[in-house]
Amino acid sequence: MENKNYIYLDNASSTRIDDRVIEEMLPYIKDYYGNPSSVHQAGADAREGLENARIKVADLIGANPEEIYFTSCGTESNNFALTGITEANQNKGKHIITSVIEHLSILNPLKELQRKGFEVTTVPVDKEGFVNPDDIKAAIRPDTILISIMHANNEIGTIQKIREISKVAKESEIIMHSDGVATAGIIPSNVKELGVDAFSFSSQQMYGPKGAAALYIKKGTRIRPFILGGVQERGRRAGTENIPGIVGFGKACEIAKFEMEENAKKSIKLRDKLIKGIMDNIKEVTLNGSMESRLPGNVHVSFEYIEGESIVLFLNMQGITVATGSSCASQALKVSHVCTSIGLSHATAQGSILFSIGKYNTDEDIEKVIEVLPPIIDKLRKMSPLYKGLI
Amino acid sequence: MENKNYIYLDNASSTRIDDRVIEEMLPYIKDYYGNPSSVHQAGADAREGLENARIKVADLIGANPEEIYFTSCGTESNNFALTGITEANQNKGKHIITSVIEHLSILNPLKELQRKGFEVTTVPVDKEGFVNPDDIKAAIRPDTILISIMHANNEIGTIQKIREISKVAKESEIIMHSDGVATAGIIPSNVKELGVDAFSFSSQQMYGPKGAAALYIKKGTRIRPFILGGVQERGRRAGTENIPGIVGFGKACEIAKFEMEENAKKSIKLRDKLIKGIMDNIKEVTLNGSMESRLPGNVHVSFEYIEGESIVLFLNMQGITVATGSSCASQALKVSHVCTSIGLSHATAQGSILFSIGKYNTDEDIEKVIEVLPPIIDKLRKMSPLYKGLI
Repeated sequence: MENKNYIYLDNASSTRIDDRVIEEMLPYIKDYYGNPSSVHQAGADAREGLENARIKVADLIGANPEEIYFTSCGTESNNFALTGITEANQNKGKHIITSVIEHLSILNPLKELQRKGFEVTTVPVDKEGFVNPDDIKAAIRPDTILISIMHANNEIGTIQKIREISKVAKESEIIMHSDGVATAGIIPSNVKELGVDAFSFSSQQMYGPKGAAALYIKKGTRIRPFILGGVQERGRRAGTENIPGIVGFGKACEIAKFEMEENAKKSIKLRDKLIKGIMDNIKEVTLNGSMESRLPGNVHVSFEYIEGESIVLFLNMQGITVATGSSCASQALKVSHVCTSIGLSHATAQGSILFSIGKYNTDEDIEKVIEVLPPIIDKLRKMSPLYKGLI
Repeated sequence: MENKNYIYLDNASSTRIDDRVIEEMLPYIKDYYGNPSSVHQAGADAREGLENARIKVADLIGANPEEIYFTSCGTESNNFALTGITEANQNKGKHIITSVIEHLSILNPLKELQRKGFEVTTVPVDKEGFVNPDDIKAAIRPDTILISIMHANNEIGTIQKIREISKVAKESEIIMHSDGVATAGIIPSNVKELGVDAFSFSSQQMYGPKGAAALYIKKGTRIRPFILGGVQERGRRAGTENIPGIVGFGKACEIAKFEMEENAKKSIKLRDKLIKGIMDNIKEVTLNGSMESRLPGNVHVSFEYIEGESIVLFLNMQGITVATGSSCASQALKVSHVCTSIGLSHATAQGSILFSIGKYNTDEDIEKVIEVLPPIIDKLRKMSPLYKGLI
């Protein structure tokens, strides 16, 4: 396989690894292959990589290194947070609050917890995808032990008012978790400013490798381990650490800390250019989410009368990679629960596409999309039995 | 950090990655960074790596690719097997059988299952570390749903009679799991020949990268997913797959399939040379485990009057990396549960060292150990208040 040189606009799913990250990983792939739990030099070398990475990862989100627990992916971090916090705090109650637009790695563990006797209140969102802090407040019961609301939605890009929500949580002394997979390394995600007690984030969405992620747990927050065995991660996450992946994650966090702001500015420019290009050239299309509080690279749009998957495939033939509604579940769900939660009809939801712009995208990439997309939409609509002859 | 050029004799903890494995991984680090769940070309490229790896991983153990579930480490595979199988089969009963010398990633999840109402019978081992199949048979109850016995012990190297144990399990229609982290890619581990329904194994012990492992689940075996979210791994293990790690794991399995036998022969020669060198030159030392049924590279010895950790540190100063009693828990436990389970006294157990020989070790490595070890033991014994003046 040669490098395909995609125009890659699916950065919400996975990002290209920064060359500086690869450089940092290579010695840990080639030379420092020891087990960090070993007391000898090979172990110490691996441990040094692990602990240096922990400092960098903690630094990105304003945490202490000993508040960082490495996991294998954002999904594991979310499972760990929900299962671990509820099990450790169930003596105080068994009620959890979340929102309808959380990632499946939140919603599915919550279903499992319901099966085990926990109760879950799922608050709605408005048509831009915002959770109303007043809804959270109203949902709180004396037995509520955990509130989990994502920092930004990975599909429609809406950035929640986490500070306001965590303030509500704090007033009632409820543990506040936020899924930051879509935000850490992309927009400022300081856990102290956000006011959260637990925060999930991942390497692969911020130009680091797959196979490395973290859960921040504020000192003093009770949580049970999720994967049990040896004493790795201070007894809270057993199993040999993925050292090359974690070292890469550390470097990705370090780079993000210094370059995130500039990258965001560039992404916003490209994002707004793409939105304008789509709106000016295609009829019957809706931009979903919020324009005021939106991820820098997010362009989530619904095209009437056609299916998102067809658009993805036609763009793919032109070398452009984009995602349908839900990047993590594209093989599972024809209609994303996020789309229906913001009030899109089933038909409109099906015509949704997510362009997610990253730091390696250029003006040329966007211009190419604006050039090839309108004829694709036109062609697909002409093939659609639902289409009434517009465009 | 420059490459330390250790004489690396801790291959039970982690192995150097084979250069051919690294070669195979690099394109998936540099170029094929898509999310395998995505429908576009970048997703297809990642998916191709994932599915080719699955074929190779399955092939090593004689399984079908659709019976392989990728995880992040051997510990996760063991947690998944125990938690998933017991939860899915608890309608038939809540009793589990295991042995005293299992890895902590078996024993600790079982403690958690006991906390949740399951009952566990832990069978003993003899002084060579063997589980007696008759003890398993005697422990079976009408409500026994799972037997989990490791293929070989990671510390003392004893290879269990898994075929006989799984025959006992089959007679009573009980699900049989085996932890094969110490054996897959090292000695033949065909799941059909072993007669197991579930089998855990890992990449980092067979010259592949950390961060990738697998659980084999025989078609038709009921198991609940452990990490919940998207539909990755056919809905049984959510979370974006660690593609470079899994691709490396696949290559490591492919190489092992063809070279394992030759490597084992070479390791056995070096192992026996090291055992003879130690026995001929040092007094009051015991070889633990079995000589008839022993991992090819395993030399687990107990030196009287001194502490294993001191030996590790003195050898380390000579550039030789070895492990104390338990490689995965060296920072946690002064005395390994495996050592005490085979009848070693606390004091003898504390003087235990594991040399684990791998395919990159040479005659010179072993000669160096035989040269430097006796004076180290002599020196440490002279410093020991327990030592009576032997050697």
